Amino acid sequence: MKKVSVIGATGYTGLELVKILIRHKNVKIAHLCVRKEPEAIYSDIFPELKGLCDIKCSFLEPELICRDSDIIFFALPHKVTMTLMASFLGKGKKIIDLSSDYRLNDPDLYNQAYAHEHGDVENIAKFTYGLSEINKKNIAAADNIANPGCFPTSILLALYPVIKENIVSYNQIIVDSKTGVSGGGRTPALGFHFPECNESVKPYKVGIHQHEPEVEQELSKYAKKKVDIIFVPHLIPMTRGLLSTCYCDLTKKKITLDDINALYDKYYKDNKFIRIRKIGDTPQTKDVVNSNFCDIGFQLIDNKLIIISAIDNLIKGASGQAVQNMNIMCGFPDEEGIIN
Amino acid sequence: MKKVSVIGATGYTGLELVKILIRHKNVKIAHLCVRKEPEAIYSDIFPELKGLCDIKCSFLEPELICRDSDIIFFALPHKVTMTLMASFLGKGKKIIDLSSDYRLNDPDLYNQAYAHEHGDVENIAKFTYGLSEINKKNIAAADNIANPGCFPTSILLALYPVIKENIVSYNQIIVDSKTGVSGGGRTPALGFHFPECNESVKPYKVGIHQHEPEVEQELSKYAKKKVDIIFVPHLIPMTRGLLSTCYCDLTKKKITLDDINALYDKYYKDNKFIRIRKIGDTPQTKDVVNSNFCDIGFQLIDNKLIIISAIDNLIKGASGQAVQNMNIMCGFPDEEGIIN
Amino acid sequence: MKKVSVIGATGYTGLELVKILIRHKNVKIAHLCVRKEPEAIYSDIFPELKGLCDIKCSFLEPELICRDSDIIFFALPHKVTMTLMASFLGKGKKIIDLSSDYRLNDPDLYNQAYAHEHGDVENIAKFTYGLSEINKKNIAAADNIANPGCFPTSILLALYPVIKENIVSYNQIIVDSKTGVSGGGRTPALGFHFPECNESVKPYKVGIHQHEPEVEQELSKYAKKKVDIIFVPHLIPMTRGLLSTCYCDLTKKKITLDDINALYDKYYKDNKFIRIRKIGDTPQTKDVVNSNFCDIGFQLIDNKLIIISAIDNLIKGASGQAVQNMNIMCGFPDEEGIIN
Amino acid sequence: MKKVSVIGATGYTGLELVKILIRHKNVKIAHLCVRKEPEAIYSDIFPELKGLCDIKCSFLEPELICRDSDIIFFALPHKVTMTLMASFLGKGKKIIDLSSDYRLNDPDLYNQAYAHEHGDVENIAKFTYGLSEINKKNIAAADNIANPGCFPTSILLALYPVIKENIVSYNQIIVDSKTGVSGGGRTPALGFHFPECNESVKPYKVGIHQHEPEVEQELSKYAKKKVDIIFVPHLIPMTRGLLSTCYCDLTKKKITLDDINALYDKYYKDNKFIRIRKIGDTPQTKDVVNSNFCDIGFQLIDNKLIIISAIDNLIKGASGQAVQNMNIMCGFPDEEGIIN
Repeated sequence: MKKVSVIGATGYTGLELVKILIRHKNVKIAHLCVRKEPEAIYSDIFPELKGLCDIKCSFLEPELICRDSDIIFFALPHKVTMTLMASFLGKGKKIIDLSSDYRLNDPDLYNQAYAHEHGDVENIAKFTYGLSEINKKNIAAADNIANPGCFPTSILLALYPVIKENIVSYNQIIVDSKTGVSGGGRTPALGFHFPECNESVKPYKVGIHQHEPEVEQELSKYAKKKVDIIFVPHLIPMTRGLLSTCYCDLTKKKITLDDINALYDKYYKDNKFIRIRKIGDTPQTKDVVNSNFCDIGFQLIDNKLIIISAIDNLIKGASGQAVQNMNIMCGFPDEEGIIN
Repeated sequence: MKKVSVIGATGYTGLELVKILIRHKNVKIAHLCVRKEPEAIYSDIFPELKGLCDIKCSFLEPELICRDSDIIFFALPHKVTMTLMASFLGKGKKIIDLSSDYRLNDPDLYNQAYAHEHGDVENIAKFTYGLSEINKKNIAAADNIANPGCFPTSILLALYPVIKENIVSYNQIIVDSKTGVSGGGRTPALGFHFPECNESVKPYKVGIHQHEPEVEQELSKYAKKKVDIIFVPHLIPMTRGLLSTCYCDLTKKKITLDDINALYDKYYKDNKFIRIRKIGDTPQTKDVVNSNFCDIGFQLIDNKLIIISAIDNLIKGASGQAVQNMNIMCGFPDEEGIIN
Repeated sequence: MKKVSVIGATGYTGLELVKILIRHKNVKIAHLCVRKEPEAIYSDIFPELKGLCDIKCSFLEPELICRDSDIIFFALPHKVTMTLMASFLGKGKKIIDLSSDYRLNDPDLYNQAYAHEHGDVENIAKFTYGLSEINKKNIAAADNIANPGCFPTSILLALYPVIKENIVSYNQIIVDSKTGVSGGGRTPALGFHFPECNESVKPYKVGIHQHEPEVEQELSKYAKKKVDIIFVPHLIPMTRGLLSTCYCDLTKKKITLDDINALYDKYYKDNKFIRIRKIGDTPQTKDVVNSNFCDIGFQLIDNKLIIISAIDNLIKGASGQAVQNMNIMCGFPDEEGIIN
Repeated sequence: MKKVSVIGATGYTGLELVKILIRHKNVKIAHLCVRKEPEAIYSDIFPELKGLCDIKCSFLEPELICRDSDIIFFALPHKVTMTLMASFLGKGKKIIDLSSDYRLNDPDLYNQAYAHEHGDVENIAKFTYGLSEINKKNIAAADNIANPGCFPTSILLALYPVIKENIVSYNQIIVDSKTGVSGGGRTPALGFHFPECNESVKPYKVGIHQHEPEVEQELSKYAKKKVDIIFVPHLIPMTRGLLSTCYCDLTKKKITLDDINALYDKYYKDNKFIRIRKIGDTPQTKDVVNSNFCDIGFQLIDNKLIIISAIDNLIKGASGQAVQNMNIMCGFPDEEGIIN
């Protein structure tokens, strides 16, 4: 039994982490750190967990947390995470960070994408990008994981095989994503106020979303060449779920849908959480919500390959994948806690 | 053409007021006062009104507003309203206040219901309660209207005939109400954050809601005796609409559903905005949303009379009724601006 | 490992049953019987279960199903169930019926409530009412379970202690319930068509809902006297969840909220799935959705006791409770499959 | 006062037509033809219209309808419309058909897009495509209008200026659309059943949607060259609203967002219902729902021009535009009935 702590346990990703960790057979929760109500009983904050997680929350005291934990999850906002991380590194703990602070290898890119100067540049290189299916080997050997963002997870899993095989153009892949409102976090704001976002669809941060450089960085690693995307996220009126519709130009002639399906089946055959839909069948978020699955489907129109992927933004797009990474790092069964 | 101003034009009731006033043939908007963005173009705050209301907003300057207006609507939060009202009274203007600050005749009741000491006690008596259908004569003669709350509107219209006729018990009438989220206002808060209130139903302020004394005050006037209610509001996942289910004990024997329907038809026959449903038919909020209608239906189980009423909380429950009151006060056609 | 089959696996309760049974450690699915697509792969009908339940569906052949199963769940519509049941009884199988066909002890009451003559009167007495927490002993000894309806589950659990203790009036307890749309089943109908029920609340079957006699039958058993309720269900725009607000007249003086909480704590202390909320705290469906929990809270206004209970209509109100009953009947751990 | 009739008044577009026509000052409703309940009072079918439209419905008798009407709206499903149209043509009536039966000039294209042989080929040429802003002159002179589909309206208005100016590639313009559920009509079906489409997003008919040829036909007319699009519609959980995100390749260098905005302002300057958003501002469906507006906004990423348009699918995408066309054909004020 490993001991785990969650720093930032009152956001949506923190809550999902706790819900998974309490049913995980190989771990036991040591500390749930919350800023605002540090002495509260966790299930008083989240009554859905009454009888399931009645732990008293903890103050954020790095020494204490390190002493009592083998694995530490960070579920804090970006910018905040980087101010705390140094106190936790290099102490023999496994760190899994759900924020975006250690995902971009290039601090200049970070400064630009987040309009904020990175305050912990020297530690960036100590983190391994945690897209579980693609980077499994490195994750297994890593101490510190930068857990991918929700949009990047859905896009990278959708595009990995065709980029790797070099059968689509690397130039201006169009990605039109649709996300549920929980992706915006648990802090109230006008844009996420029920009467404002209910019964409406709205694109936002068109071409300037902070997840775009993260996607391009990883795709470019797969391609060993610069890959760029045109990314437009849309907010739609549902709590959870994220669907990305990717439009690629096939560079190789005479590829059929059967070929594409066979390719994805091959790439993902040992990855239980990736499900390739049959030809003619399209993913929908309803099928993956409350699960760690990523469903992927295709359509071919002339030379355009349309790849559609669906995930739960809080699970495969955040906390489920974080636990999947922990399972890989610690040698726990792949599905422990996330399928049961 | 009368000149009208709206003080507090960026809340939901302010917005609905503006949407009605711009199509009203007897008025012209003078000032839209907003606190936060006083120099903004109104349609930059609410792009749905682009091309329809591109007025520049105004600072809240009582003298200026009084000079330029014949009618002034207050759509501010309670507690705030009472600090401003004195500057507007007694200047020959018609005032319609959508807040709750001048609805309760007894300041002690206010202090208790709102946990706040009333700061303008001397002006309370200058206001007439503006339940349009019931109080039409007094409204026509009034200078200052305290516009009813959304819950009170739905409950009072449902109960008026049976209370007036003294055919139900005045003791502990049970009122179970269900409201859409816009009833909570436009200020972001955790309870109205989309992922928190979507896909959930929740009772709140059980037995302590501030609208309860308002309902009891008015019912007691109809009865000329003390009437009390047990009131439980519920928040449900929709933007607009309010439905009240009232459970009364019939005190008179041998009353049939036909008698009840005939009674309500008689009481409301000249009131276009009250629609009595046929026997066996039940109101639903969908039928009244975006309108000033109040739909009322009935069922009789043994000696229990169940009265169901449905309104749009922002229109008949606030801004539509406010304009209906203006029409009565100014001798405009009854339906001007609110049916078109 | 016991072998289980589900008859009627394509409705919402059938689907929920399958989702629980596939993670239950003491059972293995033998047959999933579906009428329309008997040779289909189950996960082709419900892609969310791809990789989790790729079983081929079965024809409804009673002999085959009995041969291969130890436990048989019926998740068929009422009226249909009674035409099939005789072929399954008396063969040494455990039967758990989620329909309403064997819940009412008096067939005349059935005929009246369901406007349909009961076609299998002689077998009614062979069924035990399966409200898990209240009837545990009888369930443990039973062969055939009539699994309670969703509304009855929420109401009976809310009222059991006060009825049993005889501290509220047995006359005309008012129950105002709010249910999500999945309660109406998976067959498309205008009333459950998205644009018709989205953004609306509507009472239905006021005073004539078929679950009312079921509730009264069971309450009267607890009281050993006739108990009657006034029951008004409302349809609200969410997929899952059911909340009942019950208004009772206290018959005993000087009872406090502390007394009520203590009473419920005592009655339900060994029942993990019943959670009593603290004083001042109210249940909401969000806290119980996707779980087998029933959350109960209280408020006291004069002599009126308001009891609020929340469940997931498809889990505690149907399939979760069905598996809870199986666990009791078979001596499996209480929470197996339903908390994990 | 012209007399108007609606054939097919019980679908969602029929209902919206009626709601507009009853407030239109230049017309009076003659007949509302419904198939299933031909003697019903219209407001018994749609209680929201009680007191507003209590007309008795009519049988579909062509002679009677022609005798009593100056203008006839068809709001029937495609395939059905073509079997009835011949009886109404050539009788001096203005016909506005909301179905898709007379939109495609080439019957072979129809046969293919709708998988149904067109049964009234000879009358196709008698219809004028009714995209109000673009085809105003022809509409003014026309007797018979093929009213555009909802997706085509949103896409054509978005693309018209750039296609006309020949500044984007005509090849494989990508259009990713998101529609509310009312776009699927009022007939219940599993895909539009509340629990199936609530809380989910799903692409459908990827690359094979029947509106694609309609869009390409019209774009090609603007371009005087073949234009083709890659079209992927998505169903999202809201009742009304439609947003199209169009990705174009600029063929002309050095175009700025300012140029684009200036271009659209110029093209649409006399069209009140088209609203061009400021740079950096993006349309959302919430701003156009319940109105005849089409809001259009832009973003430029490298050489990709992203054009976003939002409409109410039932109003600008159907019934509002139908009345807008009637206004043009009959010389009524442009905004009569649709802004008020």
